[in-house]
Amino acid sequence: MSEIVRNSRIIYAAVPTGFPEPGIHLTYNDSLTIDLENVPLNGGLLIKTVALSIDPYMRTIMLGADIDGEKYLLDQPILGYGIGIVLRSEISDIRPGQYVHVDALGNSAVIPLARVTLTRQPEHAEYSVASVSAGVRVMKRSTSLPWSVYVGAAGMAGQTAFYGWREHAPAKKGSTLYVSTGAGAVGSMVIQLAKRDGMRVIASAGTQEKIDFLKEIGADVAFNYKETSVRELLAKQGPVDIYWDNVGGDTLDAALENMSVGGAIIICGYSTNAGSAPASSLMKMVYKDVHMVGFGFNTLEHKYLDEFYATIPPKLESGELKFREEVFRSLDKVPEALLRVLTGKNRGKAVVVLSDG
Amino acid sequence: MSEIVRNSRIIYAAVPTGFPEPGIHLTYNDSLTIDLENVPLNGGLLIKTVALSIDPYMRTIMLGADIDGEKYLLDQPILGYGIGIVLRSEISDIRPGQYVHVDALGNSAVIPLARVTLTRQPEHAEYSVASVSAGVRVMKRSTSLPWSVYVGAAGMAGQTAFYGWREHAPAKKGSTLYVSTGAGAVGSMVIQLAKRDGMRVIASAGTQEKIDFLKEIGADVAFNYKETSVRELLAKQGPVDIYWDNVGGDTLDAALENMSVGGAIIICGYSTNAGSAPASSLMKMVYKDVHMVGFGFNTLEHKYLDEFYATIPPKLESGELKFREEVFRSLDKVPEALLRVLTGKNRGKAVVVLSDG
Repeated sequence: MSEIVRNSRIIYAAVPTGFPEPGIHLTYNDSLTIDLENVPLNGGLLIKTVALSIDPYMRTIMLGADIDGEKYLLDQPILGYGIGIVLRSEISDIRPGQYVHVDALGNSAVIPLARVTLTRQPEHAEYSVASVSAGVRVMKRSTSLPWSVYVGAAGMAGQTAFYGWREHAPAKKGSTLYVSTGAGAVGSMVIQLAKRDGMRVIASAGTQEKIDFLKEIGADVAFNYKETSVRELLAKQGPVDIYWDNVGGDTLDAALENMSVGGAIIICGYSTNAGSAPASSLMKMVYKDVHMVGFGFNTLEHKYLDEFYATIPPKLESGELKFREEVFRSLDKVPEALLRVLTGKNRGKAVVVLSDG
Repeated sequence: MSEIVRNSRIIYAAVPTGFPEPGIHLTYNDSLTIDLENVPLNGGLLIKTVALSIDPYMRTIMLGADIDGEKYLLDQPILGYGIGIVLRSEISDIRPGQYVHVDALGNSAVIPLARVTLTRQPEHAEYSVASVSAGVRVMKRSTSLPWSVYVGAAGMAGQTAFYGWREHAPAKKGSTLYVSTGAGAVGSMVIQLAKRDGMRVIASAGTQEKIDFLKEIGADVAFNYKETSVRELLAKQGPVDIYWDNVGGDTLDAALENMSVGGAIIICGYSTNAGSAPASSLMKMVYKDVHMVGFGFNTLEHKYLDEFYATIPPKLESGELKFREEVFRSLDKVPEALLRVLTGKNRGKAVVVLSDG
């Protein structure tokens, strides 16, 4: 018996020098099939992809950066964070029909719900077989939110904001936060967490629509960095007690020049420039006793994951916390979705949804 | 009655673009006199300079950097850290004949021994009148070390190393420290503190003589950064658990690329490049959960000053802690001494001594 179906994939076709172009660096390939009944699982899972998260770090990996040893292989599918439904399982704790969140980065610290490590998964493909060393988590959906949200505001992006804020932000009522890329999936969650802590929030973005969203979620000062000098605005509206840095480079320098004594800078990843823009004002850290911390959400998951799922999805469902998403409805949209994210054109967390689960 | 004497000074004559050249950007001027009996003190002190510390930050100020608002005024004497003997006093706690350490940076947090704030002092002059807002500390010399050491290994440089190490270094036995400018006044103290904590130490410097000194004070791996790639050496000898960064720029990038997960980077100031060399690898902080902290020694003085004076000078006197100094014996040597420091030619902590006290 066999059930042979198409298994479309997004292929890493060429190394980009700038932005990855759809059809050139990332291509859609529907030439392969998969035998759902007989494909060997080697002790793992067969997963049907439900939703895939589209994130800036994917370009960083395409450019060859070493992120915990993670690489995309040329002519092979790219990898990412996503949610899928289990079709077959050779893992005792996981049953067909369950939904799983899969961590492409292969960090076994991220699997508190199902203590299993699988291969780097899920591929950006309709179906994938997970075998060794990635993190798989059986999802218990406690809200009516669609799965897309569970790879966005209730997924890696929201978790990054929540974990980083809980662990690293010395939030004080009345003190000032500045967030660059404030309308992004991480930035917008950070802003709302800061407002809940009574902070004054300065936030920047690159379009009027995003500025409007910044105001809607409570930013006290929202500005367009393409029209207003970050340096001049912070000199006027600062000093900055906490800077959540999503871009680096000259924006980081501008913040460093306007930090308060003892201020904190938090970096969870850079949105558009692959982190290559240099910063020249680190000496300001000495004059102002500033500290700067980088973190990956996965190393904090063991501390905050349960708290996150218990508190954040219900607030997203009730509207107490706001989020925006830009949902694409077929796998072939992955390259376009990523390019929109990297060029700042996306109107919310980019997610590619293959089925409503 | 009056006692009129020469009061030579070092003048900030022009803003340098690169290194400050003796006779051009810093000039020696012996045209003024001072009336030691009658010069008005305005509630302050008349101090005869004993020893002046020559430090890299002085160039940073000359280049116009804003360090807590500190500036040198053109055609006026430069300022610095130093020790002087009190000739006259209008401050009740301070008597003629006492030796005082004076903090040019005007931070009132640094005066635990005499609760007095005076003006930015001492000038690089034979005599100076201190009036409001700098830190003055009456010195109790408990060792036979000359005063020069109390502006070096037992002064601001040693204190910077000690305070920063105590406050910010997550030292663990067997873990690895990398120190750039390891043979400098700060770096060499950091190395010895790390060895006392059982760490493995990698250190770099720019001459064979300095490499020899690094080995003498216990560095496990000592290398010449002009001959050996920092990046390649750290890739082989790392990963680095703590990087004490004295230079920034590409060396910082090389360290960032070779940090261990959860590593720490400590910045107390940059030795030769005024902190302007850009760093491009801050994203590594995210992948490796690295934190970076800048600090000025003056904000930590209240916590560690007493401990410092109780423990460090006796160990310097006994030879348990080693130090090197390059002593100049007249005020007109200040410009040359500073240039030697900035070009890495000094063979120890640069100090200008005007009298043996």
